[in-house]
Amino acid sequence: MNANPIFSLYVPTKILFGCGEIKKLATETLPGRKAMIVISGGTSMRKYGYLDKVIGYLTENDVSAIVYDKILPNPIKAHVMEAAAICREQKCDFIIGLGGGSSIDSAKAIAIMACNDGDYWNYIVGGSGKGRPVTKALPVVAIPTTAGTGTEADPWTVITNEEKQEKIGFGCPLTFPALSIIDPSLMLTVPPHLTAYQGFDAFFHAAEGFLANCATPISDLYALEAIRLLYKYLPVAVNDGRDLKARAKVAWASTLAGLVEATSCCISEHSMEHAMSAYYPELPHGAGLIAISAAYFETFRNDSMKRYMKMAEAMTQQKSNRPSDFIDALLRMQKECRVDEIKLSDWGIKLEDFPKMVQNARETMGNLFTLDPRPLTDEEVLGIYQKSYK
Amino acid sequence: MNANPIFSLYVPTKILFGCGEIKKLATETLPGRKAMIVISGGTSMRKYGYLDKVIGYLTENDVSAIVYDKILPNPIKAHVMEAAAICREQKCDFIIGLGGGSSIDSAKAIAIMACNDGDYWNYIVGGSGKGRPVTKALPVVAIPTTAGTGTEADPWTVITNEEKQEKIGFGCPLTFPALSIIDPSLMLTVPPHLTAYQGFDAFFHAAEGFLANCATPISDLYALEAIRLLYKYLPVAVNDGRDLKARAKVAWASTLAGLVEATSCCISEHSMEHAMSAYYPELPHGAGLIAISAAYFETFRNDSMKRYMKMAEAMTQQKSNRPSDFIDALLRMQKECRVDEIKLSDWGIKLEDFPKMVQNARETMGNLFTLDPRPLTDEEVLGIYQKSYK
Repeated sequence: MNANPIFSLYVPTKILFGCGEIKKLATETLPGRKAMIVISGGTSMRKYGYLDKVIGYLTENDVSAIVYDKILPNPIKAHVMEAAAICREQKCDFIIGLGGGSSIDSAKAIAIMACNDGDYWNYIVGGSGKGRPVTKALPVVAIPTTAGTGTEADPWTVITNEEKQEKIGFGCPLTFPALSIIDPSLMLTVPPHLTAYQGFDAFFHAAEGFLANCATPISDLYALEAIRLLYKYLPVAVNDGRDLKARAKVAWASTLAGLVEATSCCISEHSMEHAMSAYYPELPHGAGLIAISAAYFETFRNDSMKRYMKMAEAMTQQKSNRPSDFIDALLRMQKECRVDEIKLSDWGIKLEDFPKMVQNARETMGNLFTLDPRPLTDEEVLGIYQKSYK
Repeated sequence: MNANPIFSLYVPTKILFGCGEIKKLATETLPGRKAMIVISGGTSMRKYGYLDKVIGYLTENDVSAIVYDKILPNPIKAHVMEAAAICREQKCDFIIGLGGGSSIDSAKAIAIMACNDGDYWNYIVGGSGKGRPVTKALPVVAIPTTAGTGTEADPWTVITNEEKQEKIGFGCPLTFPALSIIDPSLMLTVPPHLTAYQGFDAFFHAAEGFLANCATPISDLYALEAIRLLYKYLPVAVNDGRDLKARAKVAWASTLAGLVEATSCCISEHSMEHAMSAYYPELPHGAGLIAISAAYFETFRNDSMKRYMKMAEAMTQQKSNRPSDFIDALLRMQKECRVDEIKLSDWGIKLEDFPKMVQNARETMGNLFTLDPRPLTDEEVLGIYQKSYK
């Protein structure tokens, strides 16, 4: 970073954080009288009563709601388009994303398509997207029930174009949520392995954003605090999901990592993972990141030595003298979270898939490679995939 | 702080930071085509060319401007009312506060009164204010040329009712600046003693906000970083005003301390100083704070021991074992900034003024006393004043 950096800070989202804060839905001024609640195609939002809770508080606040409940773990464009059409037809004023990142990201994309014509990919920048400007969108309220994506504190939405195998992040000032309610008590039911995958997604948002060549004093502040909290509390939350304090610390770290994404940016590790789950949508995003992380961070070890040591110090709270201290701490944390043995082959990925993934990563999210500590060659990217293969 | 704190983060201001960033006035989307530029009654905004620079960039951006140039160091209600009347008459779309906190705070108050009827004090909460709700205000653009108030990153505006000797802070979500441009190269001309007064104002925003019983994980993050930066760089900026790196670090720390004010709150030290400068408007705010700081922080030394040690550690970067380490570091920093010998008597303050100042502090900004680490008695408040008197 330059000695006199030029940077900006703009996060217009109103963030309410804390156990029980979901009840504020009943009293906050909301951006309209009719909401579309977007949830996943799974059962958990109904099973654990979260959907009923949200509808109840909305009713108290004199807001009616319809529910769209088809979102996939890697959300697809077809659902965005379908929900946006319903939204127009039903004249919804705003969109509530309730659940994991997939539901909230979908809510943002639906909010765009409820106000803009044609296909969602007309507005996407990257891949085969046409990059048209977005000048309006419905307001979004984000209610995460997982701790990982940070989407509640940033403008980004990641949707897969299932026809083109392109998984691309997109966002603009209009896609910051107007309101985000992060209530850790809604996260107690996430099973250990998903807690770990999601928590590491947050960790990599922070670590990548800290290494990005566009990092700034404000993103650094958020990133190191997220890294410190996750190293300390993610293993606790993974090993005892009922520990509310650990859940709250991990949730806050995830939101901080979202602020990193709003003020710095992910780097090519995220492009590489998006390429993997574009071809293998069953692969959880966090699992893909964990699988390539050791080889990935090894690659830049000598390019950002000071920053590796700062991350190590935030994690261990000990003075660090070697950049590899960060990688050692990362591997220790993965072991403590029981995700040190992820096999990409378990999700059907084959060694011979990697060359096309290198190409896909470059084509769909090539911009993140320009933010790396130094430019990677295609051979290096392929090498990271191959070294990570089990 | 509770193990599972409930808190919020809402700072909708777009903050642009960096040397030379003032030029963005020419290219940013501004909230209208006609601006009122609010500056002090002094000469510096013209003498150093800052006003011409701002008008030039506005012209490039197709925005016309009128200038209101009467603001006092402790800004008064009469000027707010006069400028607001001109603003309505001239149909200005937004207000630019250019200069120190007095100009930017006045811009916020003018933005309110340009859209609301009657007297400014009708809307003030505290003292003889009537506390009516504010539901509209013109947008504000803040361009600080000093590093201290943090008003560029918070909703607060401090105006003195000169008829009633009430100096009261006020703000609401509408008084967050829409845009703030913090360009440290506009701060090179601030003389050493004012650099120190203003820098310590920022320091106390951070330290008070860190000790406040409403402090949160996000305000703590901002506060400790502001405290760290000011301890390291304020003496450098005071002793060599041309050191652009030190100016930039101090400016950023001041903005961070503004974020503390937006997410936590000042405590009674600020109420006590407001009472002093309500009676002695020539007393610079920062000088008043410095004068009472040793006795003030001594008072809470055993009430927030851990937090005192955390502040000491942020300052010295050494492990602290005693809360008094913070007070030692504070006094050292005041010495390095050559403000360790401030005499309140130099500004005409008399020992017998203090009882009425205790009363004024309670009546006009009594709410801050409720945020102290523990409740202070009137005798204690008087004692702090008396111990600080030279």
